[in-house]
Amino acid sequence: MTLLIRTFWRTRCFSPSVISAVGRGGGSLPLSWVKNRTFATTPISVMTGKKYTPRRAVMYVPGNDVRKIAKIPTLRADCIVLDCEDGVAISKKVDARKNIRQILDNKSIPLEGSTTELTVRVNSVQSGLCQEDLECILPTENLPSGIHLPKVDSVDELKWFLETSGKILKSSGRNQNATKINLIIFIESAQAILNLPKICQFAWDNVDKSYFIPDALVFGSDDYCADIGAIRSKEGHELLYARQYLVMVAKAFKLQAIDIVYIDYKDIDGLRLQSISGFHMGFTGKQIIHPGQVLPCQEAFTPPPEKIEWARELITEFEAHSKGGKGAFSFRGNMIDMPLVLQAKNIVELAQKINK
Amino acid sequence: MTLLIRTFWRTRCFSPSVISAVGRGGGSLPLSWVKNRTFATTPISVMTGKKYTPRRAVMYVPGNDVRKIAKIPTLRADCIVLDCEDGVAISKKVDARKNIRQILDNKSIPLEGSTTELTVRVNSVQSGLCQEDLECILPTENLPSGIHLPKVDSVDELKWFLETSGKILKSSGRNQNATKINLIIFIESAQAILNLPKICQFAWDNVDKSYFIPDALVFGSDDYCADIGAIRSKEGHELLYARQYLVMVAKAFKLQAIDIVYIDYKDIDGLRLQSISGFHMGFTGKQIIHPGQVLPCQEAFTPPPEKIEWARELITEFEAHSKGGKGAFSFRGNMIDMPLVLQAKNIVELAQKINK
Amino acid sequence: MTLLIRTFWRTRCFSPSVISAVGRGGGSLPLSWVKNRTFATTPISVMTGKKYTPRRAVMYVPGNDVRKIAKIPTLRADCIVLDCEDGVAISKKVDARKNIRQILDNKSIPLEGSTTELTVRVNSVQSGLCQEDLECILPTENLPSGIHLPKVDSVDELKWFLETSGKILKSSGRNQNATKINLIIFIESAQAILNLPKICQFAWDNVDKSYFIPDALVFGSDDYCADIGAIRSKEGHELLYARQYLVMVAKAFKLQAIDIVYIDYKDIDGLRLQSISGFHMGFTGKQIIHPGQVLPCQEAFTPPPEKIEWARELITEFEAHSKGGKGAFSFRGNMIDMPLVLQAKNIVELAQKINK
Repeated sequence: MTLLIRTFWRTRCFSPSVISAVGRGGGSLPLSWVKNRTFATTPISVMTGKKYTPRRAVMYVPGNDVRKIAKIPTLRADCIVLDCEDGVAISKKVDARKNIRQILDNKSIPLEGSTTELTVRVNSVQSGLCQEDLECILPTENLPSGIHLPKVDSVDELKWFLETSGKILKSSGRNQNATKINLIIFIESAQAILNLPKICQFAWDNVDKSYFIPDALVFGSDDYCADIGAIRSKEGHELLYARQYLVMVAKAFKLQAIDIVYIDYKDIDGLRLQSISGFHMGFTGKQIIHPGQVLPCQEAFTPPPEKIEWARELITEFEAHSKGGKGAFSFRGNMIDMPLVLQAKNIVELAQKINK
Repeated sequence: MTLLIRTFWRTRCFSPSVISAVGRGGGSLPLSWVKNRTFATTPISVMTGKKYTPRRAVMYVPGNDVRKIAKIPTLRADCIVLDCEDGVAISKKVDARKNIRQILDNKSIPLEGSTTELTVRVNSVQSGLCQEDLECILPTENLPSGIHLPKVDSVDELKWFLETSGKILKSSGRNQNATKINLIIFIESAQAILNLPKICQFAWDNVDKSYFIPDALVFGSDDYCADIGAIRSKEGHELLYARQYLVMVAKAFKLQAIDIVYIDYKDIDGLRLQSISGFHMGFTGKQIIHPGQVLPCQEAFTPPPEKIEWARELITEFEAHSKGGKGAFSFRGNMIDMPLVLQAKNIVELAQKINK
Repeated sequence: MTLLIRTFWRTRCFSPSVISAVGRGGGSLPLSWVKNRTFATTPISVMTGKKYTPRRAVMYVPGNDVRKIAKIPTLRADCIVLDCEDGVAISKKVDARKNIRQILDNKSIPLEGSTTELTVRVNSVQSGLCQEDLECILPTENLPSGIHLPKVDSVDELKWFLETSGKILKSSGRNQNATKINLIIFIESAQAILNLPKICQFAWDNVDKSYFIPDALVFGSDDYCADIGAIRSKEGHELLYARQYLVMVAKAFKLQAIDIVYIDYKDIDGLRLQSISGFHMGFTGKQIIHPGQVLPCQEAFTPPPEKIEWARELITEFEAHSKGGKGAFSFRGNMIDMPLVLQAKNIVELAQKINK
């Protein structure tokens, strides 16, 4: 496959007045226009003041599986998901959620100094088990950085989740303004795809009124296939529309897009191909189910060294030009504009997080 | 092509209380939430109390072609469409609709004991011929099990159809609550794709107020290609988006999805490939135009024997566990939940209908 | 690749009464239904009384590049875009717009008698440079036939553009009813794709209230890829959804669809393949960046001679049958209906324009 890596060399023009207009929400454009715009290329840290969390390899570990949990510090995944849902048998649900609560309370997984993020997947709203999960886990002193909410098919489920978790966190004495947990939304059915823009809009509309900030969409392709009656091939032609649509909506709403699981965990070449295909489509990471998938997946979702170098140089030049009062400038033969600067910042932020 | 047939082995968890909440429309969730939810995996028989009608091979027969009509009993297609529309010359429209009315009145096509369904395709609302078709055909004593409405581009056409046919059926003394005809909606233009969710929603919103229950979407790819100026290749890359989008919307609204015609009726290998591709995408059947296409098409859209066996065993186990008060259970190494049970019921129902 | 060129041989039935119902906005159908319908196959000249402008090869020329501008008459592109935007460095913006104004005032590019259309691309609304472009260019006595508006992400930008340009044109003494400039809208981000139907609807809703008539959508794939974080391959699998979706929406709103740039201008075989792929998807033309791309691109987007002949014969027959009072008729073994007649007119119009 011949690739044209042009993503980061595209020319846009802008003037300094535009940046300030957008930045200050003023200028000659109507305020509502500026306010309502979504800048998909803006790093979340710029938009919200919080850190960008890279999630190239998102790995599930059953919340009740003590043996697997013990291995977490050695996995070097970007994001560990302590699971209450699909990975846990119905008879082990209570064990899983209690165990996760204990792990959080005692900080018993030694991840200090590592780049691994610890998150929790609760059961879906439809399952009837979600409330018990939330009641058990959320009153901890050490909240996870993110909660994964599976099988969100409509706004109503998200609404129920935000309200229910809100009550529990309030009872635990949490302040809504001081506590913002990353919300990772799972899209796993035809209904969910149909309702996707509404779901994302609702999540953003309720950022100020809830304890959660939308951070990523995950495409649950197996449930999706089961729902629409599709049969998965290794090439995945049958998922082209759903995957590319999900990426588009995610990016329009400033969210990460986490790609499908590659279930044949012994086939590393196949994993690599599917990971690269997802990276090319615009996915920012991938769900994994086996320790052996961590490294190939991370490699596929890491910008190559020359792109990181390009980004660092570009930002240095941009800052120099900004001080000199010049808005747009030429860099390596291309006109550089704001979207490219923001992209470069994304890349550098990602590189810093993953120690590149 | 290596296939991963995972559709039916996916784990979801649920508790008995959820099922009853959903079933009774109560529980701790708001009633409107339960009421408005669409369960795409639920068999139509469960949702509506009526039978699931398999339509793997959907074959058109011109309503005025006496010779072809005589052959219907030997065709063994799942669904025969007595056609008033594209298959009938404008000068033969009157003949076609009168002939179809006679066939229905006299039950003159001997299909008793066969699994073949007899349906009618009227002319499109846009054609100006639809009202005459309905006035001629609907007053019969023996209504067809389904009416195919071609070229539905917007809600307005569907509205007109439901109102017009409603008046005719009422005049004929039909009771709206006792008479529900399957409605098969044809999507054949860019406008139709754009309006698709609204069209499906309208059909469901008017189930109680009309004589029709939405049952399937048919993708009319030739008219669609003509409409958007696309040119069809055998591989069909140019239709990937439209086909996959149509399947998604169909399943989100609990409808069957009927795939495109394969026009080169002598090329059975090509038909087989395109049929399998459609089956993998989630289509439930395919339009056909020649007797030689019936069998290859049916084979492609039939679940393989091992899946039927899996479904039968699963339902047996589910019933045993339900009696014992246990909601979810392990089956062949997987946790079984409600969507899987419903899928299994779909498969068994389909298998029963097609005598497998 | 085996192609089935069936687009123009499809049968639809209609009766003369339907045509008049649609034409007069009357008949038994509700007026609103007829009024609100979009006939995607209708040539724009039929819909609006203005000429259809073929744009197979749409070529950008920087508005300040005197050397390249001098070559325009020899290029034989269908549409020349005098560019204020991406092709012009920020320090040359003033030069570019002043130069374009002079070219228009003095008609200094000798294109009389040629089929090349002269248009202008202004800077995006987001750039903050658009107003100055419009204030400089629009007061000319010789308006360009079309204005290209890049990076339209939402209705608000289009609204701002229509209002701002409206004020300038009014100040210049232009009459809104007598002046209708073709508007070519660029779709270059996830937000834009998400908002696409709303953007198109807004453009049509404001036709009577503005100086612009929507005429085409252009897919700006490089900015789109940058926006969603996708990486372009030569095969372009990562853009399948966005390209096919854009064509569908364009055609639903009676707009031309202009395909992506092929940036490797030395690779003519690759250009040809990508052009043909776009033509098959329903695109009506392609953006180009080099004189060597004009001819291969035009060839790919030109209907073959046998199709032009088919169209001419069909129209002749249609006119004969219409005089005889017969609505639909058989032609080369197919029933011919209105959409096909309109398509044939499109083809003949295109062929006339390009002297075939």
